[in-house]
Amino acid sequence: MTANLPSDVMKCYLRIHHAFPENSISNSILQENDFKDVHVMIFIGFGFLMTFLKKYGFTSVGINMLIAAFGLQWGTLMQGFLHRGEGGKIPLNIKSMINADFSTATALISFGAVLGKTNPVQMLLLTFLEITAFAVNEYLVTEIFQATDIGASMTIHAFGAYFGLAVTLILYRPGLKNKHANEESSYHSDIFAMIGTLFLWLFWPSFNSAIAAENDQTKTIINTYYSLAACAVITFALSSLLDQRGKFSMVLIQNATLAGGVAVGTCADLTIDPFVAMCIGSIAGIISVLGFRFLTPVLASKLKIQDTCGVHNLHGLPGILGGIASIVVTATQPETKKGIQLTAGKQASALGSTIGIALLGGALTGAILRLPIWGQVSDQNCFDDSAYWEVPEEEKLPEINSNNYDEHSRFEAIM
Amino acid sequence: MTANLPSDVMKCYLRIHHAFPENSISNSILQENDFKDVHVMIFIGFGFLMTFLKKYGFTSVGINMLIAAFGLQWGTLMQGFLHRGEGGKIPLNIKSMINADFSTATALISFGAVLGKTNPVQMLLLTFLEITAFAVNEYLVTEIFQATDIGASMTIHAFGAYFGLAVTLILYRPGLKNKHANEESSYHSDIFAMIGTLFLWLFWPSFNSAIAAENDQTKTIINTYYSLAACAVITFALSSLLDQRGKFSMVLIQNATLAGGVAVGTCADLTIDPFVAMCIGSIAGIISVLGFRFLTPVLASKLKIQDTCGVHNLHGLPGILGGIASIVVTATQPETKKGIQLTAGKQASALGSTIGIALLGGALTGAILRLPIWGQVSDQNCFDDSAYWEVPEEEKLPEINSNNYDEHSRFEAIM
Amino acid sequence: MTANLPSDVMKCYLRIHHAFPENSISNSILQENDFKDVHVMIFIGFGFLMTFLKKYGFTSVGINMLIAAFGLQWGTLMQGFLHRGEGGKIPLNIKSMINADFSTATALISFGAVLGKTNPVQMLLLTFLEITAFAVNEYLVTEIFQATDIGASMTIHAFGAYFGLAVTLILYRPGLKNKHANEESSYHSDIFAMIGTLFLWLFWPSFNSAIAAENDQTKTIINTYYSLAACAVITFALSSLLDQRGKFSMVLIQNATLAGGVAVGTCADLTIDPFVAMCIGSIAGIISVLGFRFLTPVLASKLKIQDTCGVHNLHGLPGILGGIASIVVTATQPETKKGIQLTAGKQASALGSTIGIALLGGALTGAILRLPIWGQVSDQNCFDDSAYWEVPEEEKLPEINSNNYDEHSRFEAIM
Repeated sequence: MTANLPSDVMKCYLRIHHAFPENSISNSILQENDFKDVHVMIFIGFGFLMTFLKKYGFTSVGINMLIAAFGLQWGTLMQGFLHRGEGGKIPLNIKSMINADFSTATALISFGAVLGKTNPVQMLLLTFLEITAFAVNEYLVTEIFQATDIGASMTIHAFGAYFGLAVTLILYRPGLKNKHANEESSYHSDIFAMIGTLFLWLFWPSFNSAIAAENDQTKTIINTYYSLAACAVITFALSSLLDQRGKFSMVLIQNATLAGGVAVGTCADLTIDPFVAMCIGSIAGIISVLGFRFLTPVLASKLKIQDTCGVHNLHGLPGILGGIASIVVTATQPETKKGIQLTAGKQASALGSTIGIALLGGALTGAILRLPIWGQVSDQNCFDDSAYWEVPEEEKLPEINSNNYDEHSRFEAIM
Repeated sequence: MTANLPSDVMKCYLRIHHAFPENSISNSILQENDFKDVHVMIFIGFGFLMTFLKKYGFTSVGINMLIAAFGLQWGTLMQGFLHRGEGGKIPLNIKSMINADFSTATALISFGAVLGKTNPVQMLLLTFLEITAFAVNEYLVTEIFQATDIGASMTIHAFGAYFGLAVTLILYRPGLKNKHANEESSYHSDIFAMIGTLFLWLFWPSFNSAIAAENDQTKTIINTYYSLAACAVITFALSSLLDQRGKFSMVLIQNATLAGGVAVGTCADLTIDPFVAMCIGSIAGIISVLGFRFLTPVLASKLKIQDTCGVHNLHGLPGILGGIASIVVTATQPETKKGIQLTAGKQASALGSTIGIALLGGALTGAILRLPIWGQVSDQNCFDDSAYWEVPEEEKLPEINSNNYDEHSRFEAIM
Repeated sequence: MTANLPSDVMKCYLRIHHAFPENSISNSILQENDFKDVHVMIFIGFGFLMTFLKKYGFTSVGINMLIAAFGLQWGTLMQGFLHRGEGGKIPLNIKSMINADFSTATALISFGAVLGKTNPVQMLLLTFLEITAFAVNEYLVTEIFQATDIGASMTIHAFGAYFGLAVTLILYRPGLKNKHANEESSYHSDIFAMIGTLFLWLFWPSFNSAIAAENDQTKTIINTYYSLAACAVITFALSSLLDQRGKFSMVLIQNATLAGGVAVGTCADLTIDPFVAMCIGSIAGIISVLGFRFLTPVLASKLKIQDTCGVHNLHGLPGILGGIASIVVTATQPETKKGIQLTAGKQASALGSTIGIALLGGALTGAILRLPIWGQVSDQNCFDDSAYWEVPEEEKLPEINSNNYDEHSRFEAIM
């Protein structure tokens, strides 16, 4: 069974030990605090952000929890394989738990792209494969290219987005070309989603500074904080300006307000002025809003990329922006991190590697998920919790053909 | 009036002083952080976990707050009576606030067993009596038996569960033998409950490590984290496997995913391998799911134990598992805590004392709550906020006989 | 555009630098933790507290976010102008971010008074003006009068409340004399509001201790914690006692339970007994409940003050109580803070200055907001998200005249 896999691997191949933090006490407390905040972002933030669909809240918050609980175990092992401690043991400490949460974040971002169209077994498989690909790319970026990406604009956000987009492209459903009746929000589902938005927004400074050096912590927090603030104001303004009647759009407020956190990630611990951070945040907000308004519809209709949550606009484009910003910053001012000289070339290699591996890995994963053995949900039952959950009476759709999903979407059939 | 009781006691019998932490600065910061997390678990975690009932959300989150606010004051006094500072003063510091929150948790667990069937006055009385009984048992476990129970699997979780089960047995309502129409969830009430589940799940490592020694902190956090992760994955798998159509059940995801945090509590700061912690979490998940599916219906129909939230499966059985695990661990490897040799016998005594005092105290409390003077709510008005709350129009039940609860369930009549 | 204003000012007039905390490591960690909690209070606490209206949740949580994101940027600048660092630079550090969040809180409190009756452009203008007035008053209170107000009972809570009351008086709408059909809660909107209440309640100790001296931290936390606990229990008791049928009122539980945090603010770091803190909390609860029940209706009908959320009862009266308590405490026992002798006279001056500047500033702001150029929403469309938001179908009010708000409430028209 799935749950035993990591346990068995742990048991059989490795001897895990408790590694106590060898660094200073204050840094260890800082890490512990950041870990808790990142943990809240993963389970509450990502989980509730996706509850905006009116009939898919159980899956959003529930399968998000399943993916995360599974992913952090597999992520611990993958990180351990690549960053082995002495004696070949996997080190377990607060930092490795942060890294496990980080690697899980990529799978949750991709989950947003395919939300409503994949079943839980497919998602576990995606998580397994994506975390593996993430670990490979992260190794390349940090060890081979020696690039910096403290807030992981590239290695988590752009990676998760393009991986998910490749998967959703391969899993393209012509039957969903016209908007599915369930692919919309309800009044209260939109408010639930704001719980996710706000906890992500609030704890993003902790996300970006979680693995920053101790004396870069405050700087990283400040840059992220002001980038997000600028981004949020720009997003509200643009959301109103782009609407014919001047009204705000919930999907933009829920998502584009966060783009500033994504985009400032790579540069957050570099020597940049807070004003520069605010510029990055503002541009990220603009790109994200424009992406939601103009690009997403085109991707769906012309390129067969059905991106349910618009992760391209929240994580993809702002992630690339973060990478480009780091190329510009390292090109214009010399800086050293962990004793290594940062260069524009290293940063560009990291960005290229990230997008390449994400697209390749996502396409391969999509091909595997498309195999008929996983019990794909029918187009008709997409975006509907009742395909996977016992749902209270009032919400059950009468039109669902229960024979249909009985045969095809049983979770237990696979276990 | 109730509210004045602790204040008066404080004023008249005791001189309270601010006790500043005598321990190291880093430990005091760690304690302060853990305190905040435990506080969130008590008010948000327990409160929202119980909002799953479609017409009982006000009471779940509101009366949870009342019980907790009252309980932490009474808990402070009870802890103070037993762990007096110099000069007979009650010490007030972060640790005593954590302990007050802990003692309150037992009452909130019992609240889950009787949810929907008791009125606020009865709950305040239960809180008063249970915290008193808890303090006695905790004194026995720590001072007399000298057992260890860092995450309180036994002294909080098993205690709260069996206390509540004894109360609900004594308060047995034959009229609720057939499921009450209000005793079910709605789509949004189930999502509200997930807020509770997730905050409990996320901050459980802080709960278990809150009073751990400074150099056991990281170990305790790691063991709890991986136990919960293993438990969550097992719970999802079993939930699907046990359903005829392979569907997940919200009640299992909301509750059984947390059993790993309960069960690993007692052993979390002992020298166990993280793999052992994951095993404990996995077994806890299995026990909890099986309990919800097979045991709870039997308890209700055969043993007259109507356990609304299934606290037996979330806190009772996993709590006992935690105690048994500590017996096995201390039997197989010698270990010392606070200079005291741990033994299987001490742990077994603690487990026995906990269950005995909980059952006895619960039965006595049930007998007191059954007295006709407290204005029991009628069977018909069970599981319905409108018995105690002004409820917005759309939710008012037309069939409620207002004369009925006017006479019997007035909170003010008792004050 | 609005978003560029602070950025431009920053860029053109000032050179901002990253100021690293010069104080001890442990204090800097404490500040960082408190900052996160205050941040949660601002965005989650205030935002969700106001979601109680059945058709105004998007605006409550969304425009709360806009005001806060804008306000913290403007607050940073205003704080910087008055507390300039060396070389005329604006210091950016954790403490300045806490202060920026604090200054934003005043605008969010005033938002509660005018909720449902102002549009987003008016709210941005109010935020801009109120944060400016706040900075002036705070400068007077701390630098000129040299008063103490660690938890800002006066400078934030009373200030925000009376500022907002003055604004709503000037913006008086005779058309809303009879209760608007939308000015009520729904079952789920009341539960959403409890998310706000609980996070405010839980993190209030961090709010009051955020800028306290390191060795006053524990005392401040303890005083706030017990004041809130006493206040919550009193509020529940009074809520039931004042109702004819003994039922609790959600509006009282959502709001008056917090009054203890407001009222204990000024005295929280002074040498008071925890029992005194509990008395202050209890009195605050009583005042707040009585205010909601008896004063708010009179203010609306006789004094033309339409206070949507009842901020007078949650922030105004308890804020004054906090100021009076500090006058009594400083009059009866000599105490020194930051080397300055505290006196009753200084505290009284601070209270007077706060209320005077708040009323004057609020009246001026109200006069500006009343100018016809801002596109006031019609009485009919008050308390309705669909005036400013794209709202999912099921919630759209058929009776809204879309020509009406097209002309008058367009956000973009102003940008």
